[in-house]
Amino acid sequence: MADEKKAKAMKLADPLNASIDPATQQMIKRAQELGVETVFDRAETMKPCNIGIQGTCCKNCAMGPCRLPLPKSGIEGEDTRKGLCGATANTIAARNFARMVAGGASAHSDHGRGVAEVFLSVARKETEDYHIKDYHKLLAIAPHFDVATTVTVDGETQDRDMDEIALEVAEKAMNEWGKPDSECLYIKRAPEATYNRWKELGVLPRNVDREIVEIMHRTHMGVDQDYKNLIKQSTRAALADGWVGSMIATDLQDVMFGTPSPVQSEVNLGIMKADHVNLVVHGHEPILSEMIVAACQSKEMMDYAAEKGAKGIQLGGICCTANELAQRHGVPIVGTFLQQELAIITGACDAMVVDVQCIFQNLANVAKCFHTKLITTHPIARMEQNNVIHIEFDEHHAMEDAKRIVRMAIDNFENRKAEVMIPTQKETQVVGFGVESIEYHLGGSFRGSYYTLNDNIINGRIRGIAGVVGCNNARTKHNNDHITVIKELIKNDVIVLTTGCSAIAAGMAGLLSPECAAVHCGPGLAEVCETVGIPPVLHLGSCVDNSRILLAATEVVKAGGLGKEIKDLPVAGSAPEWMSEKAISIGHYFVTSGVYTVFGVTMPVDGAPVFRDHLYNELEGLYGGMWDCEPDPVKHAQKMIAHIDKKRQELGIDKARERVLMDMAARQAIDG
Amino acid sequence: MADEKKAKAMKLADPLNASIDPATQQMIKRAQELGVETVFDRAETMKPCNIGIQGTCCKNCAMGPCRLPLPKSGIEGEDTRKGLCGATANTIAARNFARMVAGGASAHSDHGRGVAEVFLSVARKETEDYHIKDYHKLLAIAPHFDVATTVTVDGETQDRDMDEIALEVAEKAMNEWGKPDSECLYIKRAPEATYNRWKELGVLPRNVDREIVEIMHRTHMGVDQDYKNLIKQSTRAALADGWVGSMIATDLQDVMFGTPSPVQSEVNLGIMKADHVNLVVHGHEPILSEMIVAACQSKEMMDYAAEKGAKGIQLGGICCTANELAQRHGVPIVGTFLQQELAIITGACDAMVVDVQCIFQNLANVAKCFHTKLITTHPIARMEQNNVIHIEFDEHHAMEDAKRIVRMAIDNFENRKAEVMIPTQKETQVVGFGVESIEYHLGGSFRGSYYTLNDNIINGRIRGIAGVVGCNNARTKHNNDHITVIKELIKNDVIVLTTGCSAIAAGMAGLLSPECAAVHCGPGLAEVCETVGIPPVLHLGSCVDNSRILLAATEVVKAGGLGKEIKDLPVAGSAPEWMSEKAISIGHYFVTSGVYTVFGVTMPVDGAPVFRDHLYNELEGLYGGMWDCEPDPVKHAQKMIAHIDKKRQELGIDKARERVLMDMAARQAIDG
Repeated sequence: MADEKKAKAMKLADPLNASIDPATQQMIKRAQELGVETVFDRAETMKPCNIGIQGTCCKNCAMGPCRLPLPKSGIEGEDTRKGLCGATANTIAARNFARMVAGGASAHSDHGRGVAEVFLSVARKETEDYHIKDYHKLLAIAPHFDVATTVTVDGETQDRDMDEIALEVAEKAMNEWGKPDSECLYIKRAPEATYNRWKELGVLPRNVDREIVEIMHRTHMGVDQDYKNLIKQSTRAALADGWVGSMIATDLQDVMFGTPSPVQSEVNLGIMKADHVNLVVHGHEPILSEMIVAACQSKEMMDYAAEKGAKGIQLGGICCTANELAQRHGVPIVGTFLQQELAIITGACDAMVVDVQCIFQNLANVAKCFHTKLITTHPIARMEQNNVIHIEFDEHHAMEDAKRIVRMAIDNFENRKAEVMIPTQKETQVVGFGVESIEYHLGGSFRGSYYTLNDNIINGRIRGIAGVVGCNNARTKHNNDHITVIKELIKNDVIVLTTGCSAIAAGMAGLLSPECAAVHCGPGLAEVCETVGIPPVLHLGSCVDNSRILLAATEVVKAGGLGKEIKDLPVAGSAPEWMSEKAISIGHYFVTSGVYTVFGVTMPVDGAPVFRDHLYNELEGLYGGMWDCEPDPVKHAQKMIAHIDKKRQELGIDKARERVLMDMAARQAIDG
Repeated sequence: MADEKKAKAMKLADPLNASIDPATQQMIKRAQELGVETVFDRAETMKPCNIGIQGTCCKNCAMGPCRLPLPKSGIEGEDTRKGLCGATANTIAARNFARMVAGGASAHSDHGRGVAEVFLSVARKETEDYHIKDYHKLLAIAPHFDVATTVTVDGETQDRDMDEIALEVAEKAMNEWGKPDSECLYIKRAPEATYNRWKELGVLPRNVDREIVEIMHRTHMGVDQDYKNLIKQSTRAALADGWVGSMIATDLQDVMFGTPSPVQSEVNLGIMKADHVNLVVHGHEPILSEMIVAACQSKEMMDYAAEKGAKGIQLGGICCTANELAQRHGVPIVGTFLQQELAIITGACDAMVVDVQCIFQNLANVAKCFHTKLITTHPIARMEQNNVIHIEFDEHHAMEDAKRIVRMAIDNFENRKAEVMIPTQKETQVVGFGVESIEYHLGGSFRGSYYTLNDNIINGRIRGIAGVVGCNNARTKHNNDHITVIKELIKNDVIVLTTGCSAIAAGMAGLLSPECAAVHCGPGLAEVCETVGIPPVLHLGSCVDNSRILLAATEVVKAGGLGKEIKDLPVAGSAPEWMSEKAISIGHYFVTSGVYTVFGVTMPVDGAPVFRDHLYNELEGLYGGMWDCEPDPVKHAQKMIAHIDKKRQELGIDKARERVLMDMAARQAIDG
């Protein structure tokens, strides 16, 4: 009886409307046949709160929750809406925005802290399982922590002992989270003019944790009730995320696990193999998954898999863990955020190992319907359901933990019960670009500089640079907006840097291959990509690796000819299918670093038009970048292009572009 | 037209239902006559969200807000409610609870950090306006920071230089917020058995900020989805609030401004004077208001007031600023949180100066209707409205800022426009108890110990100790529940320690005077109070001063005979009219320090019965204390008394109590 009621209440998703990806469509259908509920179905049943979605619901004290919906007819005259305490719609929406930044910045920077702690263990030689892999990168980042790389002995300059450098870097890095005075050291990696701008505006972060905590204090009932001041603090915390917490995560991961360079890989559910042990890692921190890669490749584990009748071990990743492993090892990617349940529904997932962030609690319910072992590994991220296995991972016995997990997956191979159905779809992709490899590829082997990139921007072959990043969101058609936005950009000669689930979506659509340039790009960008042999969409890694985009943009500024700050460049940012608070923190550090940033879906600010105007317009006067929201993906891309063109005009290179376009047309006419 | 609509939409509060206090009733009526809207009216018009109030609305990602109301009929069978990601009602309610702890802990501990920063300025001799007032307290707290108070020179022990001690204490204090390793030093001030319990449970805070940030990370979409684990982290952050951030605030304020000792004062709107300049300070941090006290008392300012035709300067406080100034200087208290608008509506408030926390944004709207200058002073707490004056206060030129503010109030004296109407009601109160003065009063001048208090608990004259603390909430009748709970407790021989707006409510009802003991107390408590000359309700200060209650309870444990931990004592906690996230953090550090703690109004956990059971029942098995919620104030007090009796029974002193009661009855019979 109750079951019937439930079945009635549950609306099923239409697979063709839920995703543009055939593998995903097939697996949604499969789930529905098996009676296994997925996020796509829940998105039909559960409607979002129509006041919360406007950003004007306040539950920060127990006199509320107070709700201030915007009247359908808009506001006539003075806006007299207020909560019990008198908080205006602006205050409420700004508080909610600030707390999203706090949530997002805490996630990224806690990730960074975790990496820094492991690196400290390495530097102190307390772990055998982790090592420094890239000494070059260590030497490159040391000066940014004010750590000397040379010493003067008897008037002579000598290289400093590498162990000493590592230890000092580790300690200085740890201090960025909590030192009681002065400011974060890493913030000085931004262009000098931008650093000075932030200093003048009073938004330099003092330390990472303090800025997040101060957001929580300011958004407490009856503290900061000036949306501009709340956004100022959000800026401090977001900058502490992008330029400090996330950037340290990226850098120390590169030092320990290697700086990525382009590598070929595959992507989509079709990478799973029926005759292999399928082990899927999902989450964000590579600390654990790096060990699992090593364990899977060990003879001991491969032999054990063979002994259990498997043809091998197929490791695959979901979400940013996938990006981390793909960019450093070419490990194939199973799918995006929205495909996590589907990986289990194949019936071939012998174990799914998760750490932190973007893990559906519903995985536990799905795993119950199959043989899949669902394993949580992080002390701060457990699940309530009792079918979830918790194996707490610790850097001091990392390989031992990893082998235990891999062995569990192998042991489970023989327990597959449901019929296995793995979609056939998979795409080849090139992943693993970064500040260093862009320099190499676009600067040329000998030159090694961003000059050639700048030159191609100035001469107009490349119209501009876009960062397209972020999540999937079950409120939009899976991957549709990522792909539409990216295709529109490259068609208009805008080169795209991508991370996170957006990067995975691009890979699934075949946009991370050099070959796609000829098909999808405008003539200028196609020419550059074909000459250099790179895809028009460059995979730069996971969501903490958005720091790579910040640094790449900074390198473009330094190479000259395009202004003094990121705000002067013909660049724009986008998160077409954003979902998480991390996206808001990322968006805000891009905006306040000078980037016009457009989000898709919806922004929880529409109930507070004055505050929205502050984000969408007034911030440009302060930082050069501003927010925008455009759910239509074509218009979304066109807004980005319009901003890029505005910047080209301000730089006086709009004419150059026109000339180049005419040159191309002329050349094509000749070719014809 | 729009005004008419608004007037129609606005329901007016019934003054007699809104508050038990005649002065407040009178001023609500006055406001309504003048057409000035107050929180009491808004509480009629704005109904709280009925899902949010259950704790099961999740807006932590942009796939939501997802709402999981509990069906009216309850849950039949398995609870299948989930958000898009699969988050259960337990996960959602626990996340919301954890974020409330983060908000509250950040507010208190940021306050503490601000005090520590000023103290560091003092120790570094960078400010002339602040000094060390209580060297005895500095020496008392130094060992808790592992700071030596003596040195050994040539084998001889000597007192250490006080400046050196101060500097080291300041630096060690600052480090409690962000040191990268080990644990907070101050946490060891708890009873040893409790410290060991926390260690075993893995809830010792590492540093204050980190624990708050980790809550934000864990409550991010897809991280911690185990309500028990979320509450474990909430415990860490709450303990970092109570035993570290708040405790350091209290201690360093005592060092700089003097440790309070009982002092007589007055309370309620009637303390304002028509022929005086009325300056009202409102908020939480005494850093600013201490300077304003000094400025008001300066001959320069008093002369200036006389010159402007005023008979003097009447300084008064609201909220915890009021408690801070009352306990150290006897400055009268204007009123509680809910009276802040009313102080302006008297028409006699020449300036209201606010810092952080619990400041209504609506003050700006009310101030517009009168001559009142509304002055914000803290960089992190400004207001959007343009009639608000911002004078940024800085410890490096504190007295100068304070005099500027006082002068502004005096200059405004002549601008009063509306007819002045100040209620006549005010009460006399004794405020300023603390760990030290309780020792003095109850231990006797020469003994100076908690032995006598314990003795009276053991012999049953005092049945137990209750902490009654917290806010007002416009969803309940102003002060009614505070007073009903307190009266019920003291009638049953439970001595009450009170802070915050609860303390102000007690003062307004005449319960902070020694004379009230004979009227309201049970015979045992009355006897003790009359013998010692203290009120049965002891004012212990502001909301950070709840740390005084923790330490007083620890002293009771140390004095012996009542168990080894706070959890063994016949004590209970209460926040009858709570409103702020700080109350949740306070409640949680009391619960996890071993105190059964009952909240009034409502708790946002009712939509998740399993999680609620964890808070209300399971926590007792871990910490000895647990949560409860009881909106009926009499039942509320009776639940506390039942717990106290349970503890007396466990200690084997329930018989003692019965004997004592019979003794008293016998004595009364003889007296009769």
